[in-house]
Amino acid sequence: MKRFELLATTMAAEIRSGSRPVGSRMPSVRHITAQHGVSQSTVFRAYYQLEEWGLIRARERSGYYVAPGAALEAQGQGQTPPAARPPLAVESAKVKISELVFSVLEAAKHPDVAPLGSAFPSPQLFPLQRLAKSLGHASRLISPWSTVVDLPPGNEALRRQISLRYLGMGIAQPMDQLVVTNGALEALNLCLMAVTRPGDVVAIESPGFYAALQAIERLDLRAVEIPVDPVTGLDLAALEEALGRHPIKACWFMTQFQNPTGAALAEDRKKALVELLARHDVPLIEDDVYGELHHTAAHPLPAKAFDTHGRVMHCSSFSKTLAPGYRIGWVAAGRYAEKVQRLKLMTTLSASIPAQAAIADYLQHGGYDKHLRKLRGALRTQLSAMDAALLRYLPEGAHWTLPEGGYFLWLELPRHVDAMALHRLALEKGIGMAPGPIFSARHEFRDHVRLNFGHPWSDAMENAVKTLGELIAQGSR
Amino acid sequence: MKRFELLATTMAAEIRSGSRPVGSRMPSVRHITAQHGVSQSTVFRAYYQLEEWGLIRARERSGYYVAPGAALEAQGQGQTPPAARPPLAVESAKVKISELVFSVLEAAKHPDVAPLGSAFPSPQLFPLQRLAKSLGHASRLISPWSTVVDLPPGNEALRRQISLRYLGMGIAQPMDQLVVTNGALEALNLCLMAVTRPGDVVAIESPGFYAALQAIERLDLRAVEIPVDPVTGLDLAALEEALGRHPIKACWFMTQFQNPTGAALAEDRKKALVELLARHDVPLIEDDVYGELHHTAAHPLPAKAFDTHGRVMHCSSFSKTLAPGYRIGWVAAGRYAEKVQRLKLMTTLSASIPAQAAIADYLQHGGYDKHLRKLRGALRTQLSAMDAALLRYLPEGAHWTLPEGGYFLWLELPRHVDAMALHRLALEKGIGMAPGPIFSARHEFRDHVRLNFGHPWSDAMENAVKTLGELIAQGSR
Repeated sequence: MKRFELLATTMAAEIRSGSRPVGSRMPSVRHITAQHGVSQSTVFRAYYQLEEWGLIRARERSGYYVAPGAALEAQGQGQTPPAARPPLAVESAKVKISELVFSVLEAAKHPDVAPLGSAFPSPQLFPLQRLAKSLGHASRLISPWSTVVDLPPGNEALRRQISLRYLGMGIAQPMDQLVVTNGALEALNLCLMAVTRPGDVVAIESPGFYAALQAIERLDLRAVEIPVDPVTGLDLAALEEALGRHPIKACWFMTQFQNPTGAALAEDRKKALVELLARHDVPLIEDDVYGELHHTAAHPLPAKAFDTHGRVMHCSSFSKTLAPGYRIGWVAAGRYAEKVQRLKLMTTLSASIPAQAAIADYLQHGGYDKHLRKLRGALRTQLSAMDAALLRYLPEGAHWTLPEGGYFLWLELPRHVDAMALHRLALEKGIGMAPGPIFSARHEFRDHVRLNFGHPWSDAMENAVKTLGELIAQGSR
Repeated sequence: MKRFELLATTMAAEIRSGSRPVGSRMPSVRHITAQHGVSQSTVFRAYYQLEEWGLIRARERSGYYVAPGAALEAQGQGQTPPAARPPLAVESAKVKISELVFSVLEAAKHPDVAPLGSAFPSPQLFPLQRLAKSLGHASRLISPWSTVVDLPPGNEALRRQISLRYLGMGIAQPMDQLVVTNGALEALNLCLMAVTRPGDVVAIESPGFYAALQAIERLDLRAVEIPVDPVTGLDLAALEEALGRHPIKACWFMTQFQNPTGAALAEDRKKALVELLARHDVPLIEDDVYGELHHTAAHPLPAKAFDTHGRVMHCSSFSKTLAPGYRIGWVAAGRYAEKVQRLKLMTTLSASIPAQAAIADYLQHGGYDKHLRKLRGALRTQLSAMDAALLRYLPEGAHWTLPEGGYFLWLELPRHVDAMALHRLALEKGIGMAPGPIFSARHEFRDHVRLNFGHPWSDAMENAVKTLGELIAQGSR
């Protein structure tokens, strides 16, 4: 054990024993140096280690303090009382969601928590070593001048590969309308900025991806929530009614394997959606990050395939299918491409150039389609295992439908079981989940939770579902 | 020559000869397939090649068209008539700058243009091969779970290395206040969003970095411009007056080797700046991307070093010193760290994880300080060469001061020479430059241009300065 590790371990024991209470100031570096006869740098490294362990916290210019214990008690922040289900087309409303979402996300970060609440599939399902090879290869070949040339719209080889994938679906996608972004999240945010001004009304899904709610809150927009059915997807009649009643400036919808419900719009309904929005001259921001993860044999077409006027901004990424950490996404932005490019230039300039080049190399040489087939198979198997476990352990009154793609299952709880309470109880048992209220501007869906089946099935997963079943049974008594 | 290349070359000749006029529709893929007896994929590849050469353009769902020729004529867009110099502390104003900046930036992208207008130093000055090694090494070691753990605030090893560099300047910078971003540009934008609301007044420099102007325009803020002297830097008296007259919510200043003037605030003036802002309880967004590029022996301290209350958000990056394309920057965000982290989570989630890990590895093992010494020496030598060339070729009436760091020289033109006109004339001769008006909310500084000396001196650079001298001499007659 190195000297700093010994020092850190000693001090950790003092803290854990309570002899250094929460909130108390840690001794100064000078003091420890003298007391233990070690160098200043040893003390710094020991304090870094203690900070890493979550035992102390730095306060600027004031030193280190003993950190508060596990902060799970704080999860309830931002709750609101249960609300009634929304009418078909609701009034537009300001949004206040971030606190609740952050407290839930923060809890799920802990590595010991069963990842039923995760937003990602297991990274073990991705060809990370093959990608590292592409990264090494591509980074050695990068032209020094690519810094300038790969500014938005992005690396040309990558945009060509993406364009070819559209062509594979029968969609002619001009390369100059493709903007490479830091993941789909940036693409979605840039698109929303490109077509709205503060105060504008935006149609979103209910339940829907919390990032849409956060963006609306952050940009001072107003939301109209359109109901989503877990089987048939977006309620087009409700959307049509809302378009007649509100000055909607943009729609942000997930047409395939929607987050959190897993619902997919049938192709004829996607076509009807695009035509409806064309009649009202309203742009569609299509979040399609799960489209490649269909469990069916055929690749479903996104709404973008039916867009004849460039009004659909089709956003996707490699984060859910290949390379979560590379942060490479894109948007096929149609008539808004130049505006999106400029917003990208002004806010983050460009996506990481070696990461872009690595993904281009992988798409050309790495066997992406083969990997996707394997990944789809794994997700389909895991869904089946989770379905079986839910059938085995969940009490009567719990309902779910099997999605045809993605890795989310939208679970309706038995009556009287509250999703936020269940979330807190489950976390105490080391099980994560995404409670319904984080998917709604008004914290609705307190009778639903989203479960992630993107992780290889294991005894730990089986036990997590079993415990979940027990908690639900207790709560519904 | 491959089949598609042959086809592309043939069609390029047709276009260049004028037999396919600008704006005319290119033949359909089916037509070419039949005419030339080649496969559809050959035609697609040929058309991609022609598109790459800038000879044709795709229009969505309509096919390819012959592209307009070099678009240099369009540079003048967004000009306004010359304006008088601002009073000491000006009124706050809405900003409209983007069109002008984009037209200038777009022109500078062309690889044949002499890079006197570039915003970056030459990428040849960076250890790109050593970095590629770090990238390969780091990407093989990345934990699959880092996707979750490296969410903001960012990769821990990288934040530790950055924290150690602050410690090297005598600044104790807690790691948990460091947020890793997609370059300094994102850091600056997130900081501005964290402390302002639409309509708020922000103090910026005049002349100043155009990204500050663009952010103010994009976020519907109002600007108060504080004059910057090319030698002594920011006018603190003018700032104090402005703080008394306007409800300033934030300052965005570049304290070291300011863009475009190259000015640096002396340390006592940085301390006075921090104290002045503390008295008014106004946060400082300190853009310090050039601080490491001092030509002097000692490393100057940023304003952050004098910040005892966490009100300074110190933004920097590796883009100007090490790895332009990696897009890794950070902010030491003091009391605003949590807010900045959350904004990052909501807008782009995280910086590219292999890029973060690569820079952490390089900082630990790559010899960053040795590289920086070499880079500083190269910039100092290039400044001297440019100074000599300017003395040789520029007519009387041109003035400049030698900056003590960075790679920008702020050139005052002789009377009657207009920077925008000079910019257009120089571009026609293949010389880039950054005209003064892009550094001002009201397009002032028509008698200044910013020159980049970040590129190794060469005959081409010498000739570019010579031509510049001739153009200026003609213009001032």
